[in-house]
Formats: sequence, C-alpha cells, structure tokens
Amino acid sequence: MEIKGLSRKIYLELPQPDEEDNVSGQQRILRALAQLGIRARISLRVLRALYPLCDRAQWKVTVTLAYDGAGWTVVLIEPGDTSGQHYGLAADLGSTTVVMQLVDCNTGEVVAQESSYNGQIAFGEDILTRIFYSKDKPEQLENVRCATVATFTKIMDALSEKTGIDVRKCGAMVVSGNTTMIHFLLGLDVFCVFSSPYAVRTDRPGFFRGEELELPVAGCVFCCPGKANYLGGDIISGMLATGMYKKEEITVFFDVGTNGELVVGNRDFLLCGAGAAGPALEGGSVKTGMRAAEGAVERVKLENSTFLLETIGGKAPKGICGSGIVDMVSELFLNGWIDLRGKFVPERSERIAWVQEAEEYGVTYAPGLVFYQSDIEEFIRTKAAAHTMMEYLLSEAGMTLDDVSDFYMAGAFGTHIDRESAVNIGMYPDVERSRIHAAGNSSLEGARLLLLDRALLDELDGILDLMSYVQFGAVEDFVHRMVAARALPHTDMERYPTVMERLGARGSHRQPESR
Amino acid sequence: MEIKGLSRKIYLELPQPDEEDNVSGQQRILRALAQLGIRARISLRVLRALYPLCDRAQWKVTVTLAYDGAGWTVVLIEPGDTSGQHYGLAADLGSTTVVMQLVDCNTGEVVAQESSYNGQIAFGEDILTRIFYSKDKPEQLENVRCATVATFTKIMDALSEKTGIDVRKCGAMVVSGNTTMIHFLLGLDVFCVFSSPYAVRTDRPGFFRGEELELPVAGCVFCCPGKANYLGGDIISGMLATGMYKKEEITVFFDVGTNGELVVGNRDFLLCGAGAAGPALEGGSVKTGMRAAEGAVERVKLENSTFLLETIGGKAPKGICGSGIVDMVSELFLNGWIDLRGKFVPERSERIAWVQEAEEYGVTYAPGLVFYQSDIEEFIRTKAAAHTMMEYLLSEAGMTLDDVSDFYMAGAFGTHIDRESAVNIGMYPDVERSRIHAAGNSSLEGARLLLLDRALLDELDGILDLMSYVQFGAVEDFVHRMVAARALPHTDMERYPTVMERLGARGSHRQPESR
Repeated sequence: MEIKGLSRKIYLELPQPDEEDNVSGQQRILRALAQLGIRARISLRVLRALYPLCDRAQWKVTVTLAYDGAGWTVVLIEPGDTSGQHYGLAADLGSTTVVMQLVDCNTGEVVAQESSYNGQIAFGEDILTRIFYSKDKPEQLENVRCATVATFTKIMDALSEKTGIDVRKCGAMVVSGNTTMIHFLLGLDVFCVFSSPYAVRTDRPGFFRGEELELPVAGCVFCCPGKANYLGGDIISGMLATGMYKKEEITVFFDVGTNGELVVGNRDFLLCGAGAAGPALEGGSVKTGMRAAEGAVERVKLENSTFLLETIGGKAPKGICGSGIVDMVSELFLNGWIDLRGKFVPERSERIAWVQEAEEYGVTYAPGLVFYQSDIEEFIRTKAAAHTMMEYLLSEAGMTLDDVSDFYMAGAFGTHIDRESAVNIGMYPDVERSRIHAAGNSSLEGARLLLLDRALLDELDGILDLMSYVQFGAVEDFVHRMVAARALPHTDMERYPTVMERLGARGSHRQPESR
Repeated sequence: MEIKGLSRKIYLELPQPDEEDNVSGQQRILRALAQLGIRARISLRVLRALYPLCDRAQWKVTVTLAYDGAGWTVVLIEPGDTSGQHYGLAADLGSTTVVMQLVDCNTGEVVAQESSYNGQIAFGEDILTRIFYSKDKPEQLENVRCATVATFTKIMDALSEKTGIDVRKCGAMVVSGNTTMIHFLLGLDVFCVFSSPYAVRTDRPGFFRGEELELPVAGCVFCCPGKANYLGGDIISGMLATGMYKKEEITVFFDVGTNGELVVGNRDFLLCGAGAAGPALEGGSVKTGMRAAEGAVERVKLENSTFLLETIGGKAPKGICGSGIVDMVSELFLNGWIDLRGKFVPERSERIAWVQEAEEYGVTYAPGLVFYQSDIEEFIRTKAAAHTMMEYLLSEAGMTLDDVSDFYMAGAFGTHIDRESAVNIGMYPDVERSRIHAAGNSSLEGARLLLLDRALLDELDGILDLMSYVQFGAVEDFVHRMVAARALPHTDMERYPTVMERLGARGSHRQPESR
C-alpha cells in the first residue's frame, strides 16, 4: 500500500534544456510534477540550488516535497535517484524527556529512536518553575525556547550519527507535546496555560517551516493540536495511536505523567479531563523518590517480612521510582503493614518505626531508604484523584466500568507499572486483565502515524470536535467522590473482587486495626 | 468599489476570553475571520505578538492579511482600528533605476514615489559586467543580491521618512523587473539569461515572504512572471498596464530601455520579441552621451544654423541624453546637415568639421561637445533594429502598420522623447499622432495594478499563454530588412508622408548629396 504522508520524494528524469524547449529550471520541474498530478511551488533555497546541480546531474534529480497543510513545496533537490532514502521525524516533546524517531517513509518502519532529557530542565525541574522563569520576560522565554530547539537538534544529530542518514534532509517532522511544551517550542508566553481563563495562545498550531522554528529540517514541522490548556497535542496524538475515536466499544485512555490526562468514549463521544495526578506516581512527592534511572527501585516484593527489591541496572538502591512505589504500597497493603486507609500498622513489623527526624512513621525498605506515612498519603491522594476522574467521566456518560471494553494506560508509567499491584491499591479498576493495555508512548506513536498519513490531519479536526473537556475543578461533588476513593483499594470493596480474594487468602486484614 | 488586492486589513472587535469562552487567541482571531468568510493562518511572528498586545488592546485589534498565491496569512497585528491605514508597495526594478510607489490600498492612490540608482551599479554599469562578476562566484552573486535588497530598503526608508508611514508594515509588495533583475533579487545565477539555450532558473517566481528575500515588509513579495530570457516581468507588467491583451484592436507596445522589448497583438494573440535596441537611444553609445541628469541636453532645435538647447535643470550642457539625441538626429536631418543615410553633409554648415582626434566628422552642438558621425551611425543601427522588429512581428501576424490601432511607447524614453522628432527619423511610424501614446513606467503601473487586484494574478497566466516569443536572431531575412530601415526615415519614403511634407517645405534635401 502506498504511504501518503506529509512528505514525498520523487525521482525525475527531466529533458535537458535546448533552444526548442528552454523553459526555466523551475517550470521544468513543476511541469514534470504536474504530469504526475502534483501542484507544487519551489522554495527559494531550492531555486538557488538548481544551478549547477541540475546540469551536473544531467537533469536526473530527486525532489523532496513538503506538505504545509495547504499544498506542496519542493524543499530539497538531490542529484540522481534518492527516492529510496525517504525519511521523516516523529517527536514526543515531554517536559522531562524528548523522544524522537527516524521513520522510513517508504516502509513506515522506525529506523532508529533516540531520546534526551529536555534541556528546559536547566530553567526548572518542574514546569511551573520554567513558566515563572519565562513569564513576562521575553529574553528568558527565548532561553527556554532555544533549550527546546537545542534538545531537538541534539537528538537529530544523534540519529544522524547512529544511522548515517542526514536527518536534516527530512521533508517532514511531527511533534506531539502538551500545550506548555508546544508553547515553549514556539516561543509563546505560557502563563496563560495555568491561569484563568485558561485561554492559551494557540491550540491548533499546525505547520511551520523548519527554519521558522530554527529546527534543521528541510521540510515542515507539524505540531499536534490540543483540546484545552491541560489536554494537549500529546493526548490528541494518543487518540490517533489507540484509534479509540473510531471504535464502537467504549475505551478509557489514561496518560499518567507529570499531569494525568484522561479520555473516555468511542466514535460517538469523547469526554476528557486532566488533573494533577502525576507527581506522586512518578516519585516526585515521595521523599526517597527518584526518576527511573540507575539504582531506582522498580519492583518490590514483601515476603516473610523481607523486602525483595529489583533496581534499574541491578545497582544498589538509591531511591524508588513510580513502578516501585505502586508495588510498595500494594505489598504493604497486602501484607497488612498498612490498613485500608493507608495508615501504618506498626505492630505488623519492627521495620515500621517512628522516625524522630521526620516526625512520622516510616518503613525502611533498603539501607538508608525509608518509605514514610506522608509518602503513602500523597500517593493515595493522587490515586484517588485518578480513580475519581475516571469514575466521574464515566458517570457523566451514564456509564460504569462494566461498560468499558478496554483501558489504555499510556506513558512510561503505564508501561512499567505492575498491573496487579495497580489493581490491588485501586489505581486500576479490577477488571479482566486482558482489557488493560499498556499503550506505551502513544504521543510518539500518534506522531509517527500522522507523519505517514496526511489523511489523519482531517481526522484530527473530527477528534477535537468529538471531545468535550470537563473542568474537574468545577465539578461539585468531586471532592466528596475522591474521599470515597481514598481507601485501599476503595471504600466500596465490592468493586475489587480479586483484591478481596487475595486479602482473604492472606488473612492479613482479618482484624484490621487502626491507630 | 471594493479593492481586492494582495493584502487586507481587518478590524476585529473580539470577545474577551473568559472561562465560558476560552478558545485560544489564535482561534479567537481565525474564528472571527471565518465569520467574514476568510480562511487564514497566523504567522509565528504574530502568534508571538498576541500577548500582551491583545489583552492591552482589550481584544480590539486590526490584522493585516497577506496573500501568498494559495491563501491568506495574518502577518501583522496592531492594537485598535488601523484599517484606515492600509498600504502596499509597487516596485519597478530597473537595471539602472529602481522606482517604488507607496500605494493606499483603500483608495488605490499613490501616496508617494521614490527612486534610486540600482545599487548593483557598484558591480558594473552595464548588466553584462554584473553578470560576469557574479558568474559561478556565489559570494559575488550574494554581493549583487544584497546590493539589490539594500536599494529596496533604502527606498522604503525614504518613503517612510517622506510620508510618516511605516512601510515595513505593508502586507504586500509587487516587483516588476526584467529576468536578470529578478534573478539578482532572488540570488540566482544569471548567466543562463544570456547563454544558449536561454533556459533561465525561474520565469514564474511568484510569491515570497518578505523575510525570505530579506526585504523588510510584513507580508509577501510578488515578482511578476516573465515570458523569456529577454522578455521579463517588466513587460508582462506592461501588458497589465496597457490592457492590450484584452482589446479587440491591434496594439504595438514598445519598451525602449537598455534593451528593446516589443509586443504586438490583441486579445487573440501577442507576438513578442526583444533586441539590443537600447544603449544608443539612452545615450550609452554616444560619445558625449549621458544619463538624464542635470546638465543633460534633452531638447535640440537647429534654427538658422544655431543650436537651441534645453538642458535638465537649466544647467550648462554636460552631454546629451536620449530625448536630446533623437531631437539632434531629427534636426540634423530636417536641416539637411545629414543625408538620408545619416552621413554628414559638411557643405551645409561650417559647424560640421573633421575632428582629427576622432578621425571622423562631427558637429559641435555646445562648447566642447561634439556629436559624431559614428554616434549617428550607432543610433541609426538601433532605430533600424527597433523598426524592423516591429515590422517583422506585424508581418508575422499578416499585418501592416495600418492595422495597428495604438502604439504604446513605454519607459522614460517614451515619456521624454519628442514624438515628431522620432517620426522624422523613422523611429516611430508616421501615423496619426493621437495613436502614439507614452505609456510611462508601465512596469511600475502594472505592479501597482497587481497590488490592488489579485484577480489579475489569473490574467497573468492568460497573458503568458497568449504570448509567442520570436527569437529575432533566428529570423532569416532580419538583417536584410534592417538595412532597408537604416535610411532616414526609411528607404520607402512613402511610409512617411508627413516627413516628406516637412522636407518638401524646407527644401533641405532637394538636392540630396552623398559623399
């Protein structure tokens, strides 16, 4: 099947000019393209390259065409037939990590993938710091923009180095990112994203020439549109990746990152919302929490009062990352070391102790590493928020979890988390496990799909029209609902039959105690 | 009548964002434009300007839209209602002089006009010198390009200064120029214009963003398309100005500049060609010739053996310019000081003398200023070429001068030349004088018309299709025809009845003599 993406490469064997046929180099190329049914213009840069390239190549040349939403522009000309080397770029612009794929646009396959920490981190670990740094300070905003561009360029260079392919010749790049990230990339003031009335600068940025963004690609850069300030292009891209907007069955899509974004629906409706579901889950608010890097505890088992830990890279534990935290809470709960409300039950183990310094209980899970009561509480607040968001959107649609066919858990969190642990603590619903899918980096995947299929550009409009954004902050009984979701796994235990079964088998909560 | 030009300015009173209607700034503007039936995109520069401009202006803003041949882009946003100040630029990029008009796009009127010598002159007085300077030397080509851009910028600044209008805010500029000039403006190698097979780089350059050309205009720059290497956008622009491509009657269009370009036809056909008709007429090949500057003789009368001269600025004569030369040859001829073949008749006046230094006859027309035999011969060659071009194109169309309704003489030459003098020497045909029109700077006028009416863009294609370019060099009997046209006014005197009448009245050629 022919790939109809955002760029094209076409080999042309043009007649050499003579006095009988001395039409200009420009028209010679456009005439040949017109014969193929393609209307195009030629960029100034390519006009300047025609001579002496065309003569030397005896007018056997390959043109790269870039789509800009309205039409085609010849953005590159190469001697000979290079149509077999047709590449494009898909990027997920995350606030922490930027990931880019070099895609073979002839086959659709990923040739290579590279990632890097987002260089914006120099201006703030968390997004809010970066926003306040750049707010109403154009030069500082420019710093953040340049850091973003530099990160892209660095990854592109790494891709070139890795593959031997000059990625700067790419005729198209698709970028998915949340609204803040796209604003930073474009050099737009971001405070609007976080302040009422949440009217951002752009939500459908569309196409830009690479040079306009100072990105070294020959063609255009398409930025995925967003729905709302907290529901950006990364999520819309995820819709493309999961295809849930085309399905008859109801799907729940959950992307847990720094923020938590949720979409519930099918081809008839898409309810969506976002909330601060993230930091605790990613280790941000946990005292010994850390990113998923070497030495991070990513798996926790508690057997015979002993912690069995797996760390990234097999190194000595330095801290605990998202998937480790979910395991930790789940294991503490299954073993009865914390109760239904997440409170430590010190009688259960001498490892649980009052830490004078922190003025709270904690459990030492590795030498020098303590998991505290406040860590658990922070985590529970977050999982309660996530759960309630899902429950609320479903109820808005007049539905329950039973109506949901599939759950897509996007992002690194969805990929690395242990499904059973997440169910145990009520973060995931207690449904048939085959209905829970790790969607992976669906933001990146959607970008790749867009790169390869320009017909999806029209579908984006349909997706945005289908979507209704719910401001959870404006929901009256949201807090009330959230309180009910704070128990482990939930106040209404009937919703978690497999968890009840497990607890029953272990007997660890037969006489639940509270302090 | 509403002007539908290449730019638009629209005042928008947008609803201020609130939580009910918090659509992005971008969509807020595009939504309002869509309600007016305008599909547009917003440039990155304007996206960056939205904040804090829109808030400060309470969302009462004026947008400038630029047309790029395919669609509209918002290229400028201003607070308040500035739609009354809507300006555009029309430019004639001549190899010697660049002229620019600041046009009120609401009324179509010319607000101001400024001109400047083309800065390319630093790299050669004549075009060929500039071409050889830049040939295959990209850095030197870049020098010529920058000189062109600098000339434009200088004129723009002069227009701003003169009018108090910031012309950099213009949403459109139209440039007419010959193929060489447009190539230099775009930074394209020009040698192709002058060397077989005369396949140039671009003949339909179309629209460029101002910044792409490094021209300081907010909107787009449209370069008039050309028909052939020697028949460029300045002539096509002239077709728009004269409207001859729409008429039923047959028109002859002649632009005498450094080169001579000719078009003959009507709404059914346009035959065109070009030849080296120019330099002699502009004073270039005349020993005491000079540009039309202060001190240049522009009018010559020869009465009672005395030269009555008018100079530009009324200064002492420094040399003679085009219109002066035509007068000079005409007066010498009417007075019998030169014969039908243009040879001096020394017996007629003691002012005609052998100049030892020059080894030829000459006539002293002012202190220290001599008009030589070789000057006359050079001039006659040129006028013969011009005449023969016209005759040939007409005969190709199966027509004679009698079939021609109107003659348009374009350029400074057509404007300043004395019509009777031009007829006397056979440069203009001896037809009813009301049929001979000075078309003025029709290149500039066509540019202004295009600026104000984008429907003309489509007509350009029609004009180019209608045109057939004749390579005079390839015409077999061209030289033979030209010999016949070398007499004053022509070998076939029957074609010049009013000249015969005048000569008869004066009796100056009753006994034509030859040396």
